[in-house]
Amino acid sequence: MNHTQQWQSLFINVNLATMAEGLSGYGTIENAALAIADGKIAWLGKINDLPSYDKSVVQIIDGEGQWLTPGLVDCHTHLVYGGNRANEFEMRLQGKSYQEIANAGGGIVSTVTATRAASEQELLDSALPRLQSLHQQGVTTLEIKSGYGLDTINEIKMLKVAGQLAEILPITVKRTFLGAHALPLEYKDNSSAYIDLVCEEMIPEVAKQKLADAIDVFCESIGFDLAQTEQVFKAAHKHNLSIKVHAEQLSNLGATELAASYNALSSDHIEFLDETGIKAMAASGMTAVLLPGAFYFLRETKLPPIELLRKYNVPMAIATDANPGTSPIHSLQLMLNMACTFFRLTPAEALAGVTRNGAKALGLGDIKGQLAVGFDADIALWNISQPAELCYQFGVNPLRQLFRSGKQVI
Amino acid sequence: MNHTQQWQSLFINVNLATMAEGLSGYGTIENAALAIADGKIAWLGKINDLPSYDKSVVQIIDGEGQWLTPGLVDCHTHLVYGGNRANEFEMRLQGKSYQEIANAGGGIVSTVTATRAASEQELLDSALPRLQSLHQQGVTTLEIKSGYGLDTINEIKMLKVAGQLAEILPITVKRTFLGAHALPLEYKDNSSAYIDLVCEEMIPEVAKQKLADAIDVFCESIGFDLAQTEQVFKAAHKHNLSIKVHAEQLSNLGATELAASYNALSSDHIEFLDETGIKAMAASGMTAVLLPGAFYFLRETKLPPIELLRKYNVPMAIATDANPGTSPIHSLQLMLNMACTFFRLTPAEALAGVTRNGAKALGLGDIKGQLAVGFDADIALWNISQPAELCYQFGVNPLRQLFRSGKQVI
Ligand SMILES: [Zn+2]
Ligand SMILES: [Zn+2]
Repeated sequence: MNHTQQWQSLFINVNLATMAEGLSGYGTIENAALAIADGKIAWLGKINDLPSYDKSVVQIIDGEGQWLTPGLVDCHTHLVYGGNRANEFEMRLQGKSYQEIANAGGGIVSTVTATRAASEQELLDSALPRLQSLHQQGVTTLEIKSGYGLDTINEIKMLKVAGQLAEILPITVKRTFLGAHALPLEYKDNSSAYIDLVCEEMIPEVAKQKLADAIDVFCESIGFDLAQTEQVFKAAHKHNLSIKVHAEQLSNLGATELAASYNALSSDHIEFLDETGIKAMAASGMTAVLLPGAFYFLRETKLPPIELLRKYNVPMAIATDANPGTSPIHSLQLMLNMACTFFRLTPAEALAGVTRNGAKALGLGDIKGQLAVGFDADIALWNISQPAELCYQFGVNPLRQLFRSGKQVI
Repeated sequence: MNHTQQWQSLFINVNLATMAEGLSGYGTIENAALAIADGKIAWLGKINDLPSYDKSVVQIIDGEGQWLTPGLVDCHTHLVYGGNRANEFEMRLQGKSYQEIANAGGGIVSTVTATRAASEQELLDSALPRLQSLHQQGVTTLEIKSGYGLDTINEIKMLKVAGQLAEILPITVKRTFLGAHALPLEYKDNSSAYIDLVCEEMIPEVAKQKLADAIDVFCESIGFDLAQTEQVFKAAHKHNLSIKVHAEQLSNLGATELAASYNALSSDHIEFLDETGIKAMAASGMTAVLLPGAFYFLRETKLPPIELLRKYNVPMAIATDANPGTSPIHSLQLMLNMACTFFRLTPAEALAGVTRNGAKALGLGDIKGQLAVGFDADIALWNISQPAELCYQFGVNPLRQLFRSGKQVI
């Protein structure tokens, strides 16, 4: 069989950082071409190996020697929220005490109050510039968590806004229900009643309305304990929702291992994760999500266990954790630099973290995050002379063009 | 006298972070107005106190409750250079040895080689996007150093390119001659002959062609020693050039104290500066230039002596140090966040660092960096509800409008 290919678009004179599974480093193909048909990648390889194709229908894009990567994936964000926490940031730097900041309404409570008070439209208006900024940096897929409503109506409001964002900008949005993010004031000293509400009212309603793809829990001494976390996991399983977890950020409670036993997609933060937990992740095929923005902003000193993650071949994703309290840093390009600078990831590992492994952390590993035949044609064209430049420098955006499902969106 | 004011432009419904000398914090004036005439700030104050003005000639700008600050000043950059150092960055993260990196042509030598090989036009083309990025972040004044030519012809080439940049974008560029940045290979083991060249050929030529406003020296065990530094200072004095110094970054050699005795404008980096040096700075009216980008990128742990700088009222400026080797981070907005996060500056101190004190570090303290009558009308309008937001969050650019000498440029 040697029929002529019918393609919609064809990149020529490009270099590819395919980030394809099983290839080492960037999965580089230099002097390459890449063809798109039906929103998918239809062919890629050396330009000299290009098969014959129907020139009457194809749009040719001359990459002029620049580089293609998969569209970027930001697999962990809290992008929808009301207000901001600049006041608290300033008070802390002025030497105000925890109590003074709390008295001034600081902490996650202030974000919950502002999020509850905001209308859907107000939340949408405030989240949109944040999403636009990420989009302009090359992001074609991202995750948005709820978790600042902390009651059924406001958690649902957040998830609806996250869905609306995906209709405004050409970005694939995966939504995660994070009712178990913090204890709302009205359940102070009664966390078990709140977890019951999460499991018996919120999760069923979110599932029924198809408002989320996954659930998440903040399992920590200052969050929810292991038994409560498991209760949420069970409710998620019952309603066919995927599982993610904020775990081992400040201490090692074993939530990652627990999540592995529930076939979770990812465990996120994991600065304090030990070898037992990492083996469990490897055995169940979980992805480790590293969040250098929070590490930076909180001035953490305990590094995630990178060497052990490498040893057990646990995929490492990198995300912004964009949120008003611990990572008000809406830049995935900066996370590439910080992952290398703080966590000593190689540029190839960092880039895999915002492409192939970011997609895995969202359960999209089979269709996004790689330049490979059959994958969604989510593709970024960068004005760089080698992929490491994406990690090494920051501040001048090298994005030239962006395609989502084969359609040019930037 | 109560004559009607003749203004070109008038901001109404704005809040002002004047950053004016002698006022505490941001020098805030809420519900304010600000008038511009002849490219200078002609009036500012509470909108209720607005004097009568000729409405037939003035352009009214409704700030809609947003904030004005002085245009930002980036007082320490190495923005003009050839090539980049992504390769070396990647090799280091791959665990390659110093020797392997050196063998591959890494280090400042690679930047010198690339800068010498580049034409003026090539240097201009590569620097322009970096300058554009800073401009779009609100920068109206910046400093550019030479220091990658390390011979007369190439140092002059760099300074000429820096001057050309100021003709392309509406930014005030101050140029600093940094011939004593590193020892070129051809003077290996003969640093005194190189310093003679700097003092007897380069500085006179730079001064004659009026290519720089100041000189700078990298005084460090891996740079030039104190005697060589003084030799350069003397040549600068002879040719009426201002003095700046890269000092006490990796050790305390006393270059700051020496610079103070030569009435230097600033000492930059200064992580290892002691109280004696700080007293000398205070006595001679020097500005301390803090460079959180290099601190971050080099993963330094020794903090600059912020408490002592506060104690002796030494003005603290903040800059990008944008350069390919130790701070390839072209974002002054990010430096605001890093100055707070790493150095624990208050947001008001950080903002003073990129306005009033940045201007002082360039000898422009009397005309730039403050919203005050008689100062240049370099003004940024920001979509924020309080000045601390400029420091707290990063990634969504809040700049709405930018004025330089009273003319809108963004
Ligand atoms: Zn998070
Ligand atoms: Zn420097």
